[in-house]
Amino acid sequence: MRDAYHEELDSIGDSLVEMARMVGSAIGRATTAILDSDLKLAESVIEADQKVDDLQHDLEARAIALLARQQPVATDLRIVVTSLRMSADLERSGDLAQHVAKLTRLRYPERAIPQDLHATILEMGQLAQRLMAKAAEVLVTKDVDLALQLEQDDDAMDLLHRTLFQHLMDERWKHGIETAVDVTLLGRYYERYADHAVAVAKRVVYLVTGEHADELQADIQPEIQSVSGAEGA
Amino acid sequence: MRDAYHEELDSIGDSLVEMARMVGSAIGRATTAILDSDLKLAESVIEADQKVDDLQHDLEARAIALLARQQPVATDLRIVVTSLRMSADLERSGDLAQHVAKLTRLRYPERAIPQDLHATILEMGQLAQRLMAKAAEVLVTKDVDLALQLEQDDDAMDLLHRTLFQHLMDERWKHGIETAVDVTLLGRYYERYADHAVAVAKRVVYLVTGEHADELQADIQPEIQSVSGAEGA
Repeated sequence: MRDAYHEELDSIGDSLVEMARMVGSAIGRATTAILDSDLKLAESVIEADQKVDDLQHDLEARAIALLARQQPVATDLRIVVTSLRMSADLERSGDLAQHVAKLTRLRYPERAIPQDLHATILEMGQLAQRLMAKAAEVLVTKDVDLALQLEQDDDAMDLLHRTLFQHLMDERWKHGIETAVDVTLLGRYYERYADHAVAVAKRVVYLVTGEHADELQADIQPEIQSVSGAEGA
Repeated sequence: MRDAYHEELDSIGDSLVEMARMVGSAIGRATTAILDSDLKLAESVIEADQKVDDLQHDLEARAIALLARQQPVATDLRIVVTSLRMSADLERSGDLAQHVAKLTRLRYPERAIPQDLHATILEMGQLAQRLMAKAAEVLVTKDVDLALQLEQDDDAMDLLHRTLFQHLMDERWKHGIETAVDVTLLGRYYERYADHAVAVAKRVVYLVTGEHADELQADIQPEIQSVSGAEGA
């Protein structure tokens, strides 16, 4: 049987998972909204972000109350402090999904994204959503291998980001400056969103192993590289 | 006489002030570097960011050790938790200054910024540096009025950001897509930097008053608006 203290600690974990699910859904819906120029969907993403913010405030208040009342040490203390950081990552991810939705609204009824960039933006949106779904899974399972996988996915996001830039820099670019500005910002939003999802996963690695993900990654990097090399072949 | 506990709490505050000074200097130097296309200066900003990161790691370790050993409650607990958040804001501000420096390096020996945008970028860089200097002062003095002033300065940053966009959207824009992309990202870096400086000041307001700055701002907004209206006239 769990005591009240560990129940409270678990409930903070549950809130993180719920936040990750909400912002994962938000980036998926924001991507659909901007590709389809769907104003109603964009508005729903913008409104829903308030719930993420509320959840974060609530989580923070509970974490601080837990620190004050229970004065955890060692692992439990690390869990609470790390949870505060993860909630900040997730709150910020929600903002970035909201930025995508706001760009949809700003350009409506025009489409912000030219047809020849649809495929790349769709891929970025889907990858962002997958990254966050994996981060949520890592929060639940504490699966270090899965957490380290997120870094590979993040490399894929960087590749997509570069593809986007190649489109922009192509001398045949014919969509003008405004669209170039929109696409530049959009690329940045997805990239940052992915960074936050990876950060959440890395923090779980730190909690589980006591090592920062980068150090761990360095140890197993040759193995992972050979695997991804085989997949790429 | 201060006990060891309060000395440690003070030293965390000192580290925050030092971080703010370092990242304030970084954004000033990064701005000079990008305007002058000064590679050496840009490199020095890029390298110096490691010190900011190290300071943050050190601060975090000390904050967590303090929580574990001293188990502070009430105000002291809020100070420690809020310090962790402020250090994250400052670390991120350092990254953004580094991004400006990296853009300088990427375009070297070309100049990233066309001459007709120099004045606006210079103003954004100076304002960013002033905002961080004020945030550092707020950290030292706990001056709530000064903290609330930062929001006005942030409005000035938003105005500069809009000016930048007007340049970009002007049909006479003749600097091509690559420069438009660079200027878009640069504008975003300064805007986000300013947001983090404001966030630091707001967190001090919360510590001092127990109220979030936005609520406090709402109470005194009419007064501030009339003052700034008079200044604007």
